[in-house]
Amino acid sequence: MKIMKPLILISNDDGYHAKGLNSLIDMLSDLGDILVCAPESARSGFATAFSATTPLRLKLRRKREGVEVWSCNGTPVDCVKLALSQLCPRRPDMVIGGINHGDNGSVNSHYSGTMGVTREGCMKYIPSVAFSLCDYRDDADFEPLRSIVRKITAKVLAEGLPKGTCLNVNFPKAAEFKGVKVCRMAKGTWGNEVVRTRHPRGYDYYWLVGEYTNDEPEATDTDNWALNHGYVAITPTTIDVTDYTMFERLKDCTDEFC
Amino acid sequence: MKIMKPLILISNDDGYHAKGLNSLIDMLSDLGDILVCAPESARSGFATAFSATTPLRLKLRRKREGVEVWSCNGTPVDCVKLALSQLCPRRPDMVIGGINHGDNGSVNSHYSGTMGVTREGCMKYIPSVAFSLCDYRDDADFEPLRSIVRKITAKVLAEGLPKGTCLNVNFPKAAEFKGVKVCRMAKGTWGNEVVRTRHPRGYDYYWLVGEYTNDEPEATDTDNWALNHGYVAITPTTIDVTDYTMFERLKDCTDEFC
Repeated sequence: MKIMKPLILISNDDGYHAKGLNSLIDMLSDLGDILVCAPESARSGFATAFSATTPLRLKLRRKREGVEVWSCNGTPVDCVKLALSQLCPRRPDMVIGGINHGDNGSVNSHYSGTMGVTREGCMKYIPSVAFSLCDYRDDADFEPLRSIVRKITAKVLAEGLPKGTCLNVNFPKAAEFKGVKVCRMAKGTWGNEVVRTRHPRGYDYYWLVGEYTNDEPEATDTDNWALNHGYVAITPTTIDVTDYTMFERLKDCTDEFC
Repeated sequence: MKIMKPLILISNDDGYHAKGLNSLIDMLSDLGDILVCAPESARSGFATAFSATTPLRLKLRRKREGVEVWSCNGTPVDCVKLALSQLCPRRPDMVIGGINHGDNGSVNSHYSGTMGVTREGCMKYIPSVAFSLCDYRDDADFEPLRSIVRKITAKVLAEGLPKGTCLNVNFPKAAEFKGVKVCRMAKGTWGNEVVRTRHPRGYDYYWLVGEYTNDEPEATDTDNWALNHGYVAITPTTIDVTDYTMFERLKDCTDEFC
């Protein structure tokens, strides 16, 4: 009798060639069959965007030791949709986004293409996790993450996750971690986001950059606090974005808004 | 003494020329000063994506009766960031996305560029609302929405919204509405999303389409139910996507994941 190994679908927003993604393949290769479908180039900041009007293409980039790596010209979410529909030999047991080069804590969760991958898996009711390292460099060192990435993956493969909930896991830039904390998302804001520049032809154009502010630096239960203090932050993240406080307050007031 | 009128920043994902956006300008023009910055062409499905690597440009398309309409080559979120930084004469009192041509209920909230506009405003702690009509047609009739759009806008201008909460307002396609319901987001899934097509040059390419299923059709408190039964659905929507049930259960179990 052949025992089917778990199938893990991996994508990211840094592109199929990124070190973080390839480190992740290496860390997980004995935990299941791995299929990768990732953007053909960097798609940072693509959030949960999908391509409503662009024709999409897939390319098999390599197949080695049972791991297929495909690229797609679309967004991170497109990669997951196409992989589920066209590439996966069976329904994946898990979808993983990452390992991202850069912090996806706090409101970055809304901009992150890595979280886009993870939300898309979660919206298909597949247990889904995002891994990110707070180090933007192309040659960031992912090796210190290995044992925790493996433990979380093995745990989620064994136990699943509640339907509609995924995990946003962020690692501080460090050689060692003080521990793992289950966190809530910090309230934070981006400011000074636009730099105006003059084109040689004489018109203005703009680059988006920015500075992040943690708006509740004293709160010790947030992802920002954990990361700033050397802990790995696991933020359980929900697809249902209803504000239930306001919903419960207003659901029976039919005249409230009309 | 000159009394400052409220400033309303409007954007969308259908583009600055879209009928829904121009209908909205017409509906709100006496409620405040209006500044529009919207994509130069359709950006449906762009979610909360922003342009991390693309140089952005702004063009003033028209200025009439005090309303400036700008276009931007980027995403809906880019439009909000650039408008706040470069165009608005003061901090807006409200950010509005829409009126969108199409349904942004349930999980569409995560894909919608109109909701991207609204989330971006909300992440800047500005009271923010998305208006959408369940009619994708370019020439959809927005006139039946006028009185409710005005009432909600006036109410939010007068009372604000809780920090970190925005409103996702969806209108059924109808000449009249049965009423307004404050809803929670329905659990739903998109399936059959990929159509494979053969290019004349002999390779496969793919279009994203899909069929939506409401996974809890009996629940009467959801946005899907309201829209299917002729009601306007107001879904209070939160930026904080922490799953608090899981957070509360696990926040003190430091060994749970390591």
